[in-house]
Amino acid sequence: MSEKLEFWLTLGSTYTYLTIQRVEQIALEAGLKLDIRPFNLGAIFRKADFFPFNEGTDKTAYMWRDIERIATARGLEPNLPAPYPSPETPRANKVALLTIQQGLGMRWIHQSYDAWFKKGLLPGSDENLSVSLPAVGLDVDKTIAQAEAPESAAALQEQTEQAESRRIFGAPAFVVRGELFWGDDRLEHAANWGRTG
Amino acid sequence: MSEKLEFWLTLGSTYTYLTIQRVEQIALEAGLKLDIRPFNLGAIFRKADFFPFNEGTDKTAYMWRDIERIATARGLEPNLPAPYPSPETPRANKVALLTIQQGLGMRWIHQSYDAWFKKGLLPGSDENLSVSLPAVGLDVDKTIAQAEAPESAAALQEQTEQAESRRIFGAPAFVVRGELFWGDDRLEHAANWGRTG
Repeated sequence: MSEKLEFWLTLGSTYTYLTIQRVEQIALEAGLKLDIRPFNLGAIFRKADFFPFNEGTDKTAYMWRDIERIATARGLEPNLPAPYPSPETPRANKVALLTIQQGLGMRWIHQSYDAWFKKGLLPGSDENLSVSLPAVGLDVDKTIAQAEAPESAAALQEQTEQAESRRIFGAPAFVVRGELFWGDDRLEHAANWGRTG
Repeated sequence: MSEKLEFWLTLGSTYTYLTIQRVEQIALEAGLKLDIRPFNLGAIFRKADFFPFNEGTDKTAYMWRDIERIATARGLEPNLPAPYPSPETPRANKVALLTIQQGLGMRWIHQSYDAWFKKGLLPGSDENLSVSLPAVGLDVDKTIAQAEAPESAAALQEQTEQAESRRIFGAPAFVVRGELFWGDDRLEHAANWGRTG
């Protein structure tokens, strides 16, 4: 019975693009079972009256440059800056929950980020879903209908409450052996925490 | 003629405690000349109507835990959480400028952080200065009088304008070969940028 690496993500998070490229490998190497947990970070931001990357700010300009430098160092080739922010993130998070339930693991999440960071299609938008869902063999209309059903909203709400109970305030976040880690740059810290206790 | 590693700091920044322990060594190893630049980050936060670590928030609780884990991994032994936020940071930044002008480099900055993170004395407070200034051979009353003179306010303002011109929005920040890096966890990125061009 191996420890879990809880990977808390929202599909509208920019830095999470960096994390999804490597979280599976890092969890594997650390002997941790990856537990993929989409949640509605936007709701947590609204409660705190906070948004990390407002349009036109120096911080947001820096964010894109920082991601670009790190992506380049890791051999990735996104088209940056991608459109931002992402108004249909909640729908993307609901689709993510559905695809995980259907046993697709990270597969659709990768497609959603590729559509966003390579083709410029915002997560959860019709344009993004029209590309990313067929890429993993899912029907677009049927999946959107499922994502818009009340059950999906309730499931995302439940995830978000669990995130709040872990005191999560940003994404990506990781929880391992009860410890919270925030940010792509803390993924190795989280994996080490699980590995070494 | 070696490249500079500009190290932009405010004496009230918590994560900067981690940076000051290693920035000199990392600059040296990268063949970069360390340029220590205190500035008034609080003024930039006020303009942006933003403060990163409000009291009682999950993010602030996380910040202390994150610093504690990293400090432990690096063999440091601070007493955390230290008091926060730090209302007399501007005075501490003015003293930092004076001590740098007097050729003390990082020496007083180390003392100010030790007084804060080990003895719980807020940066720029009378209590902190009464300990940290004599530790580097400076007279307390004379130095406080210099820090409170208009020239010191103007010098700090000038530094802050230079920080703004570099689009700095947080601390610690590093500028090397015209590239901006933010956060203790980007210090190695900055050093590598200088080293490899």
